[in-house]
Amino acid sequence: MAYRAPVPEIAFLLEHVVGYDAVAATDRFAEATPDMVHAVLAEAGKLCDGVMAPLNRAGDLRGAVLENGVVRTSPGFAEGYRAIAEGGWVAVAAPPEHGGMGLPMAVATAINDMMSGACLALQLNPLLTQGQIDALDHHASDDLKALYLPKLISGAWSGTMNLTEPQAGSDVGALSTRAEPRGDGTYAITGQKIYISWGDADFVENVCHLVLARLPDGAPGTKGISLFLVPKYLPDAAGNPGIANDLKVLSLEHKMGLHGSPTCVMSFEGATGWLVGAPHDGMRAMFTMMNNARLGVGVEGIGVAEAAYQHALAYAQERRQGRTTEGTIIGHADVRRMLARMRAEIHAARSIALACGVALDMARATGAADWAARAAFLTPIAKAFGTETGSAVAETGVQVFGGMGFIEESGAAQFYRDVRVTAIYEGTNGIQAMDLVGRKLMDHGEAAGRLLDEIEACAEDARASLPDLAEAVWQAAETLRETTDTLLRLPVADRYGVAVPYLRATARVLGAHYHLRAALADPEGAHGRLARFYITRMLPEHGALLAEVRAGDAPLMALSVADLAV
Amino acid sequence: MAYRAPVPEIAFLLEHVVGYDAVAATDRFAEATPDMVHAVLAEAGKLCDGVMAPLNRAGDLRGAVLENGVVRTSPGFAEGYRAIAEGGWVAVAAPPEHGGMGLPMAVATAINDMMSGACLALQLNPLLTQGQIDALDHHASDDLKALYLPKLISGAWSGTMNLTEPQAGSDVGALSTRAEPRGDGTYAITGQKIYISWGDADFVENVCHLVLARLPDGAPGTKGISLFLVPKYLPDAAGNPGIANDLKVLSLEHKMGLHGSPTCVMSFEGATGWLVGAPHDGMRAMFTMMNNARLGVGVEGIGVAEAAYQHALAYAQERRQGRTTEGTIIGHADVRRMLARMRAEIHAARSIALACGVALDMARATGAADWAARAAFLTPIAKAFGTETGSAVAETGVQVFGGMGFIEESGAAQFYRDVRVTAIYEGTNGIQAMDLVGRKLMDHGEAAGRLLDEIEACAEDARASLPDLAEAVWQAAETLRETTDTLLRLPVADRYGVAVPYLRATARVLGAHYHLRAALADPEGAHGRLARFYITRMLPEHGALLAEVRAGDAPLMALSVADLAV
Repeated sequence: MAYRAPVPEIAFLLEHVVGYDAVAATDRFAEATPDMVHAVLAEAGKLCDGVMAPLNRAGDLRGAVLENGVVRTSPGFAEGYRAIAEGGWVAVAAPPEHGGMGLPMAVATAINDMMSGACLALQLNPLLTQGQIDALDHHASDDLKALYLPKLISGAWSGTMNLTEPQAGSDVGALSTRAEPRGDGTYAITGQKIYISWGDADFVENVCHLVLARLPDGAPGTKGISLFLVPKYLPDAAGNPGIANDLKVLSLEHKMGLHGSPTCVMSFEGATGWLVGAPHDGMRAMFTMMNNARLGVGVEGIGVAEAAYQHALAYAQERRQGRTTEGTIIGHADVRRMLARMRAEIHAARSIALACGVALDMARATGAADWAARAAFLTPIAKAFGTETGSAVAETGVQVFGGMGFIEESGAAQFYRDVRVTAIYEGTNGIQAMDLVGRKLMDHGEAAGRLLDEIEACAEDARASLPDLAEAVWQAAETLRETTDTLLRLPVADRYGVAVPYLRATARVLGAHYHLRAALADPEGAHGRLARFYITRMLPEHGALLAEVRAGDAPLMALSVADLAV
Repeated sequence: MAYRAPVPEIAFLLEHVVGYDAVAATDRFAEATPDMVHAVLAEAGKLCDGVMAPLNRAGDLRGAVLENGVVRTSPGFAEGYRAIAEGGWVAVAAPPEHGGMGLPMAVATAINDMMSGACLALQLNPLLTQGQIDALDHHASDDLKALYLPKLISGAWSGTMNLTEPQAGSDVGALSTRAEPRGDGTYAITGQKIYISWGDADFVENVCHLVLARLPDGAPGTKGISLFLVPKYLPDAAGNPGIANDLKVLSLEHKMGLHGSPTCVMSFEGATGWLVGAPHDGMRAMFTMMNNARLGVGVEGIGVAEAAYQHALAYAQERRQGRTTEGTIIGHADVRRMLARMRAEIHAARSIALACGVALDMARATGAADWAARAAFLTPIAKAFGTETGSAVAETGVQVFGGMGFIEESGAAQFYRDVRVTAIYEGTNGIQAMDLVGRKLMDHGEAAGRLLDEIEACAEDARASLPDLAEAVWQAAETLRETTDTLLRLPVADRYGVAVPYLRATARVLGAHYHLRAALADPEGAHGRLARFYITRMLPEHGALLAEVRAGDAPLMALSVADLAV
């Protein structure tokens, strides 16, 4: 039941579903032809299947531990990481001028997806480095870039994000870590940070922390926050790790899953840091990092969903139970239903994530504001729907295994436990939904409207060959458009109580669109049949979700705290 | 954040929502007046809050272990069990002639719910004993009853169910355990059984195994299976535990959760057993046990949901994050939404389970076939929807905790891990759904139709006071009726591919009915407001589910195994 990176499927989606051809047609990404991308994906797939996937179980059974202040990683993780770094896979989208491959985000997203399916705990390390590279590339001084980017891109050093403090989680503005200017261009950083994924690792030469902290003249709240780069070892004159900085890992969290990824409590004790971006402008830089990371976390969910699906599919084809034509439980209608739903959901979520990657690439390559708005609109959906798909598919995977699913040796439970955090970190899914109905509709729904125009135009084109599916998708898009208009007439604060169902409905409709596109490319094949399954049996859920949105927040807000306690 | 058994809420449901008054009005249950029931629930609640709930975490951290062939239970479990047994709480519905209290199943179900919320791992032990008592009471010889029932009812001995073998899970008929008649009225039982919950315990004098096995002349499949009672220690002439039987615990499973409940691999090695019921008629007796247990497992899910909900609600009222009127995260609309949904779902699932208990009691007290059919119809829904509610609410509970939810110390993760098995054991939820659309509609939908008549009549009555809610419930019932008719026109085999959405839709509509009844009793109070939340925001899901049912199994069956592997 070994994991196999879904290279052919991703290549199909890039070619036929999410419009990657437009990316390859730009000057900036002219070298990333479909053939070249396919070759890159195939190479990455080999790494995933041969090196990373075999580490996944060991990461669960023998998680990272803290020994004398140093994190000891799971068996094989050091070798696995080395293979990732040596192959140049830490950050394939990183800028070529600092040693990166400069590949499109659509391709980087696909690779993150595949690597997450192979070994989520290990993949999280380079994902965080990718976010740091992006933040430094956009906001750091040239000196910092020249020193740090090559090390991060090569994987010699790794990167972390230090936002959360005990009293400052989703409310980042409540943080109390301080930064004191030393007068020599450096700052003394003091405070405690929690939930720091890969806050330390024994397989990199240095760990670079991006830390949010407040300068002495920083205002309260998010407006007074600045961003600092705080390495574990201070680089010496040659740029190599020198003396240890004044920071340490206090402890590791005892988590439900993802044991291979050390989640650290970090203590900064007058540690030396360098300002990234302007003073008090840390949130903007952090958002660069987080937007990148949000798409990356979305595909973490999708990758685990893929792994859980493959695992359940293999079991269903092997487990004999009851009389079926196939001889195994895959012949039972409800087992088939579970697998079909898993497969169809992965198609939907992965397409949304790759389309978000395409939009990011088009924005970067063309500078067009429409593409940037498209990427901004899709990011919270890719994150929340991708991670919900991860949880839902892993849960169904456990169910396909029956009693074995609850036994750890089967491996189904690990997917279920590991993936659960993805709906929480990098901004909870509730926050993603608030972002969608708030900030991402602030353009009066223009980005949403353009997307719906495309969906309806595609459905119109499909009417000739797939009339019933086309009609269902067109109608769903129209209902979403009407409900979006209803939402736009409300003050933003009144949208939050229906934000999650709105996000889910949007994902349902987008999923239908991408299934329809797949069916147009492969009408008589597996994709055509999967699209029919999704559109006839899963798309109707958008109706219930949009009905919930139209019901509004009044029935919710009428419930007092006292009511809930009854 | 201590668990408090929801005694007032359950009393409200019994009085106003599920028609318990009819039970108390029967001769059989005349003593179980509402006042008496309330007093019983309050006593049980004390046990749950004061004795069982404090054990829950220890059961997770220090699970049961096998030492030299003997199961050593978690710290405090022995004392907890003793309190359960001494209070008479093992089997409150058991027959008075053997020492039971003879309380209605509705009350026993409520107590199982509360005990599951307090400590699921420990509660599973008496739940299995309850099932065994029911099976013996209906099918065993008078001698066996006289010997075993008092011991089981008092809790001195515990009971288990031994169905599953490695090759025989959901397909029980594939089992290979043999029973050889010895000619002295006893049988030699030989075989291996897996997933035996509480297959051993160090806090009871004896463990009584009900074992499915095949006699030498037993036909293949389920028709040739017989049921045997196989105690760990053979009773001596005085009825006390005597010499050890030829059986042993080979190992304990390493599970995702429920560590306090030992899940045993049992080996029967020519063990002495006694036939229960007629030869080759074991499945019928087993179904008696399983029907009882299915309702019990349904409320396991609901109990854990209640505990997870209380836990999340307390955290939401305590955790400060962001600016809200309330000062805590309960002021955030999406946190409020999550809590409201949890609360509303528990109300729906619990009402269904208690209504199933009421139907069982009415069937027993009146002998009316209609009530028996009602109970049979509601049982798979109570099991599947109760346990899905358990998983869904526990998952949302993790989300309310944010990052803390993924950290084991918070306790939110334990609910999520523990409850997952309830959707699997005692017949997977897929099998419950197949039972519903197959066996439970074999009466040409009469039981379903009578239930829908009642729902619509209640909605008609509610039109005067709650017109909009009444209309929504009436319409939903009518759509369910039409879709049920559509389903009835299909051969049973063609229903299985839509069985799960049909079950979920039925639960959604039933939930709306019970919310409406609660609103009628408390129109200006918390129940009225919660009903409005459920009916306007959650009930619409029935539409999507029934659309999926109407789409039928063709889009599913068109997907070949090869399609799924793409």
